[in-house]
Amino acid sequence: MGLATVEQLIEERNEHYLQRLFALLKQESISTMNKGVRECAELLKQVMEECGISSRLIETAGHPVVYGEWIKEENDFTVLIYGHYDVQPPDPIEEWESPPFEPTIRDGRIYCRGVGDNKGQLMAQVLAIKTMLDCYGELPVNVKLVFEGEEENGSPHLAAFVEEHKELLACDLVYTSDGPMHASGIPSVELGVRGILGVELVAHGAKWDHHSGNMGNIAPNPAWMLIDLLKTMRDEKGRVLIEGFYDHIRQPTDYELGLFRKLPFDREELIKQIGYPEFEADAETFYRQLSLEPTFNICGFHSGYGGEGSKTIIPARASVKMDIRLVVDQDPADIFQKFCAHVKKHAPDIEVLHQGEMKPSRTPADLEIISVIVQAVADAYTVEPLLVPGVGGSLPDYVWTQILGVPSVMVPYANADEANHAPNENMSVALFFKGISCTCHVLHRLGEFSQK
Amino acid sequence: MGLATVEQLIEERNEHYLQRLFALLKQESISTMNKGVRECAELLKQVMEECGISSRLIETAGHPVVYGEWIKEENDFTVLIYGHYDVQPPDPIEEWESPPFEPTIRDGRIYCRGVGDNKGQLMAQVLAIKTMLDCYGELPVNVKLVFEGEEENGSPHLAAFVEEHKELLACDLVYTSDGPMHASGIPSVELGVRGILGVELVAHGAKWDHHSGNMGNIAPNPAWMLIDLLKTMRDEKGRVLIEGFYDHIRQPTDYELGLFRKLPFDREELIKQIGYPEFEADAETFYRQLSLEPTFNICGFHSGYGGEGSKTIIPARASVKMDIRLVVDQDPADIFQKFCAHVKKHAPDIEVLHQGEMKPSRTPADLEIISVIVQAVADAYTVEPLLVPGVGGSLPDYVWTQILGVPSVMVPYANADEANHAPNENMSVALFFKGISCTCHVLHRLGEFSQK
Repeated sequence: MGLATVEQLIEERNEHYLQRLFALLKQESISTMNKGVRECAELLKQVMEECGISSRLIETAGHPVVYGEWIKEENDFTVLIYGHYDVQPPDPIEEWESPPFEPTIRDGRIYCRGVGDNKGQLMAQVLAIKTMLDCYGELPVNVKLVFEGEEENGSPHLAAFVEEHKELLACDLVYTSDGPMHASGIPSVELGVRGILGVELVAHGAKWDHHSGNMGNIAPNPAWMLIDLLKTMRDEKGRVLIEGFYDHIRQPTDYELGLFRKLPFDREELIKQIGYPEFEADAETFYRQLSLEPTFNICGFHSGYGGEGSKTIIPARASVKMDIRLVVDQDPADIFQKFCAHVKKHAPDIEVLHQGEMKPSRTPADLEIISVIVQAVADAYTVEPLLVPGVGGSLPDYVWTQILGVPSVMVPYANADEANHAPNENMSVALFFKGISCTCHVLHRLGEFSQK
Repeated sequence: MGLATVEQLIEERNEHYLQRLFALLKQESISTMNKGVRECAELLKQVMEECGISSRLIETAGHPVVYGEWIKEENDFTVLIYGHYDVQPPDPIEEWESPPFEPTIRDGRIYCRGVGDNKGQLMAQVLAIKTMLDCYGELPVNVKLVFEGEEENGSPHLAAFVEEHKELLACDLVYTSDGPMHASGIPSVELGVRGILGVELVAHGAKWDHHSGNMGNIAPNPAWMLIDLLKTMRDEKGRVLIEGFYDHIRQPTDYELGLFRKLPFDREELIKQIGYPEFEADAETFYRQLSLEPTFNICGFHSGYGGEGSKTIIPARASVKMDIRLVVDQDPADIFQKFCAHVKKHAPDIEVLHQGEMKPSRTPADLEIISVIVQAVADAYTVEPLLVPGVGGSLPDYVWTQILGVPSVMVPYANADEANHAPNENMSVALFFKGISCTCHVLHRLGEFSQK
């Protein structure tokens, strides 16, 4: 496959590349709390420059994008690599076995907030470019890199950024490494994502907390108000009762279902991963629910006292945060409107806050360029990758497929049990290096493809 | 009324008595968090000794009782004064206008956690005894004082303490000052309390939090489990659906309803107090719901992320803390059994934790001793007090009426808007001194009564 020199160089530089990654990991960059984000952007730009990529910060209405490029006039193919340098909050901190922002290696894994999601995968891309440049002095295709700082906050300004810089970002393919690999450990090439709508419902009772004895039955209880509303929104089986919620859902094609049926499925292994022994779904149900059906998830419900012991109050306020994953062709704006109409009908005093949204996306699986990527991944991992029409998570993939109008593929580099968004987030050391190698193979195969 | 010297002495000592109170207020004593409780008990014992009361700590299986007495062989009437030196947690701390454990006077009120509930009222009793002793060298009746340190935690060991020390505690009447005065500012003599049952429901989903995209529709959501259960327990009108919940409730007598109808009722003033402009009940509904009907209150509901912004997870755990106020003759043990049976039937995997209980209590309103107390309170406040068959809150009154088998009266000394259990808890400076005076009048009238 002609990349022996590249593979050897990666191996020689293992320790050095890990240190590059660790420097980035140590820099907090919690976008939802605005902690250390710009500092991290500056650091990433510097790292990219050191790797031979011409880089700069591009301001948005939110956190800056770190943009980099390596361009040679003669190349007639351009790949745009997308990733994000922001991370989730680390809480509950007490459940971490090592501090969340001190990268620590245990049992062949790097533990740190953001290592899998997404700094380890992003650095694999950057270090692949450095490796290729150090080996060959140039790249076989043009590369543009867009690393945003708001992905964990729903990428609220990415679409505007892409709109504004269409010319700068012009390319033939978008390539993303984010999210976990398939549980089987087999690499995958993923072609679609669910969208998301984030909402918060806030119920207000009296103006302040009351003693539950002195005001019990008199002051209204906002926690009960929310429960009374929520029970009108979803039945016990999880079906959403908001009118029109399921309209516009594109049913899976036979081809897509066929691809799903080819995916490996090991229920026992899944149970271990999920930490839920009662899990019972079969393969098709699992993949279908996970990627082709919407969710109606409560990610937080808070009201009143939650500390040790008890505190007999009637809370003044209750709030529930929800994230609703959407599938093509549900439109977050349309669903939000229906959600609000439902609240207005059943509990008009409850506030609805919009907490961000993202459209779902899908790239056709039968394009020739997809088979090139599949081949490159097969080269890197020496195993045929899974071709997956859609995954459960949300990435702003629609900005490429809809705004730039180009195909978009996702090849995750992190282990399935990376614990992204949870305590003890981690990434396998071996998979980090495999990710560097994979990007090299992708650039190489795209080079061959563009010279045909 | 013959207590002019006493009233004068109280006035002369205003500043000095406030300082005595402040010393006690500064000492944290959060029973549910075990913060500073024993230190407060020791301090209180010392203060009582300085006031001429023979005092000691009596250990219980929980926090100690501070017991004091002033006994003269010749006296043939004994009143037992009950109160508590523990306080509620101060959170949410950010809503306090001055630090919760630094007593601060603003606009004629002392602001401090525990000032109304119950340290200010308790110190009024102690300082009344000091005043009477300094005036007359003796008291007209024997006095025993029981100040416990676990009232805010549901008085879990008070019943055992009373059982064990029946002889030591032998008395003719129990007198308690706790809770707020009537909203009209007219003093009241209260004869009953609601009971309470504290429960916590804990639902478990997967073993750890999951990314809501990567596991949405797969990992179970414990917040939804709780909501699905809670909606089977109570309808939208607040009626409890647990089988047998309303059995054994003693309906109000005509005499009790008559007493309620005599109570003042000012809806506009109540709305201000409650901080809930939509409040619409009439007088009878209000008093009846507040003191003769049970509640089904959620005092805390917590699951998942509650900080700034959003965090797209499926929480691993959800918990709801409830306090259920009970009325005679509901029995907390019976209600708990029915609650558990309901959970077992509808959601057997959800854990039920018992968080303490207390029986309801009522003292007959037609006893002669009640009229003595009514007269003493009228002397102190120069207005006829309200006679109230029952109040909304819970105090361990049943330990006196059922275990000691004596009448029990409650005369609250704190202002109606004391904000007990809430931020900016306060007590009117004038009412603090009025409380001292009231206890003096009570002791005086009881002395007269006992010499008849």
